[in-house]
Amino acid sequence: MSQSDQQKNKTTVEIYNRSYTVIGQEDPHHVRMVASLVDQTMRDINEANPSLDTAKLAVLTAVNTMNDYLKLKEECGDLMDYIEKLEKEDKNGHD
Amino acid sequence: MSQSDQQKNKTTVEIYNRSYTVIGQEDPHHVRMVASLVDQTMRDINEANPSLDTAKLAVLTAVNTMNDYLKLKEECGDLMDYIEKLEKEDKNGHD
Repeated sequence: MSQSDQQKNKTTVEIYNRSYTVIGQEDPHHVRMVASLVDQTMRDINEANPSLDTAKLAVLTAVNTMNDYLKLKEECGDLMDYIEKLEKEDKNGHD
Repeated sequence: MSQSDQQKNKTTVEIYNRSYTVIGQEDPHHVRMVASLVDQTMRDINEANPSLDTAKLAVLTAVNTMNDYLKLKEECGDLMDYIEKLEKEDKNGHD
């Protein structure tokens, strides 16, 4: 998703009291869900750290989300390794 | 990761020319990698949209990362479904 105009849908969302027009291939329902999760994460971080300005809050939201993404990527990698193992066992008839 | 002080490591990182002290269980090397990915994403989005202020840039970085996270979560779910299928086949001896 980006604010460039190379793609299809144009969805306006509100995140932390500011409007964003997101242009991309994702359907508006999905974009609104993503925006709402970001908004909620910003509010949660703000609650724990009320002195942060919006930019710092948004950066820490991005940091937390990136951290979750990397953890999930590792889990996904583990699942793929497990699938490979299962498929190999399957091929070898468990010998 | 948060800016609260309930956990262990304290790592100072620079993201988009501002300093952040991240306190959490993750090791400093991991925190620096996460910070560097967020910094790079902000710079990429800035290149495509030079008129955005830092707060909007950071929010869009969070939006993009959240979008990637949700896509990966779906992929992870598909892998788990596939594992379940493989394990069931395995149990049933392919009948």
